[in-house]
Amino acid sequence: MKIAVDAMGGDYAPDAIVEGVVMAAAGLPEQVTIVLVGRQSIVQALLTKYGADARTNIECVQAEDIIDMGEHPTKALSQKPNSSIGVGFKLLKDRQVQAFCSAGNTGAMHVGALFSVKAIEGVIRPCIAGFVPQITGGHAVMLDIGANADCKPEMLAQFGEIGSIYAQYTFGIDRPRVALMNIGHEEQKGSLVAQAAHQLLKDNRRINFIGNIEGGDFFAGKTDVIVTDGFTGNTLFKLGESFYGLAKERGITDAFIDQTNYESVGGSPILGVHGNVIIAHGISSPLAIRNMISLAIRQVESDAYTKIAQALS
Amino acid sequence: MKIAVDAMGGDYAPDAIVEGVVMAAAGLPEQVTIVLVGRQSIVQALLTKYGADARTNIECVQAEDIIDMGEHPTKALSQKPNSSIGVGFKLLKDRQVQAFCSAGNTGAMHVGALFSVKAIEGVIRPCIAGFVPQITGGHAVMLDIGANADCKPEMLAQFGEIGSIYAQYTFGIDRPRVALMNIGHEEQKGSLVAQAAHQLLKDNRRINFIGNIEGGDFFAGKTDVIVTDGFTGNTLFKLGESFYGLAKERGITDAFIDQTNYESVGGSPILGVHGNVIIAHGISSPLAIRNMISLAIRQVESDAYTKIAQALS
Repeated sequence: MKIAVDAMGGDYAPDAIVEGVVMAAAGLPEQVTIVLVGRQSIVQALLTKYGADARTNIECVQAEDIIDMGEHPTKALSQKPNSSIGVGFKLLKDRQVQAFCSAGNTGAMHVGALFSVKAIEGVIRPCIAGFVPQITGGHAVMLDIGANADCKPEMLAQFGEIGSIYAQYTFGIDRPRVALMNIGHEEQKGSLVAQAAHQLLKDNRRINFIGNIEGGDFFAGKTDVIVTDGFTGNTLFKLGESFYGLAKERGITDAFIDQTNYESVGGSPILGVHGNVIIAHGISSPLAIRNMISLAIRQVESDAYTKIAQALS
Repeated sequence: MKIAVDAMGGDYAPDAIVEGVVMAAAGLPEQVTIVLVGRQSIVQALLTKYGADARTNIECVQAEDIIDMGEHPTKALSQKPNSSIGVGFKLLKDRQVQAFCSAGNTGAMHVGALFSVKAIEGVIRPCIAGFVPQITGGHAVMLDIGANADCKPEMLAQFGEIGSIYAQYTFGIDRPRVALMNIGHEEQKGSLVAQAAHQLLKDNRRINFIGNIEGGDFFAGKTDVIVTDGFTGNTLFKLGESFYGLAKERGITDAFIDQTNYESVGGSPILGVHGNVIIAHGISSPLAIRNMISLAIRQVESDAYTKIAQALS
């Protein structure tokens, strides 16, 4: 299994990325190799700096260009085919790697996924999933957390199905509970879109829909999948993540609150495309990168995207 | 000044309400009287139970009926004019009291406000404001937190103006900073509604619009007013409030996190109507009721709703 990592993407790239990859490499299963994509002279120097050993479960692939965080995704990808993101997606499309991860330009990662491995047939819109730690243990999969600010009811209903399959295969949860984020528990509550989505989710016999949850249920362990539009999902996810920083600032250390730290999972998969694409926070630290690689391995092993394709096509 | 309180509304009414009123009465400014609206036999017995003194800064007004939490607002109000909510709004409409507060049926409070004191001319839709503690001290006013699940850009823009006036007069903030909750700091980010609202807020010279904030900025002290639709606002507000319960469960005591407890402010005003109407959590404790009364007094003193009416008409 090969996991490609964009060495050049992220606010602290390439340093933090290479350091995180070296951390991950020290504990990799034997069959896994990490492929660092980026400027080889820089990457090699950093591998030496961070003491990567000679066992070579890290490979390097040259990519001369870099897509900056602020660049227009579509324009940048077409003008810079030799960027680390461009080359990473080429490797993924050609099945030379089984996953591609980057802490770089999120828009470019999203567009790159759509242009290279492409959306699964039957998927209305691919989305980004976030992992929300639950007080009862484990994580709930929340989708969408930002790819689609405006959602139709049919999209939300499909997020429920995609999230259910993902939770089943990647987290090993039997009949995952699926809930709709809403502003009341009763089915007639909420925006017009939420009301219509509730009915579609309720009518879908392939999922275990348990009804609405509210913002106060975010960490409560009531559900395995949280369905929401990318606007609500993004704001909630970022507020949830901010608990860690706030607690840290106040000198509070707590095992559960520590899990709200973005670093603890390290990445968010794009779901609904024909491949494993994982995006990380721009501010990703070496620890976040290491954990993102663990997530990528888990996703490759679970083969969730194939299961999603089988269910929806 | 007279503040009417619904004795019968709330999950722990009438006990918790009367206890809270007695707590508040012990520390009231001389010119303030609380008017308890509800079944007099019950209310009088509870006043005795909680040791209300004979100084009589608590008055009672009889209301035989009760609107239950689950009742249909419009139907209940028209069928039960002698309910505590019905009588409370009659007192407010007749200017016999300067504010009306209830922890009862939120929908009935909203509809009652629209039917009695009515929306201010020029207000597209009244909304509910929540108070978000800020790490830098004080609170930001967030609106809407649940009255309007679906909002047009013009509504969001008006929330910005209403919130700005409220923060100025009730909190004494000069040129309050107004921010739009969004999924990116750049002005082209977000849903179609958020993008359009951003432009309207930017073009409004009567407010100090500072741009977008994200979910991670919720407690950050970056703004005095948070503009959002009632769907996003409700879910964010409830997630923010859950921080307190989560910390408490984990044995964490912290002065800032304690402020995320709903009890610390105790109430949420309906803004955009011709009067001071404050709704509280159904689960309101005596402490929450006491703090809601403090908020009501502050609102009456600031005369914010008249200032809003002057600005918008």
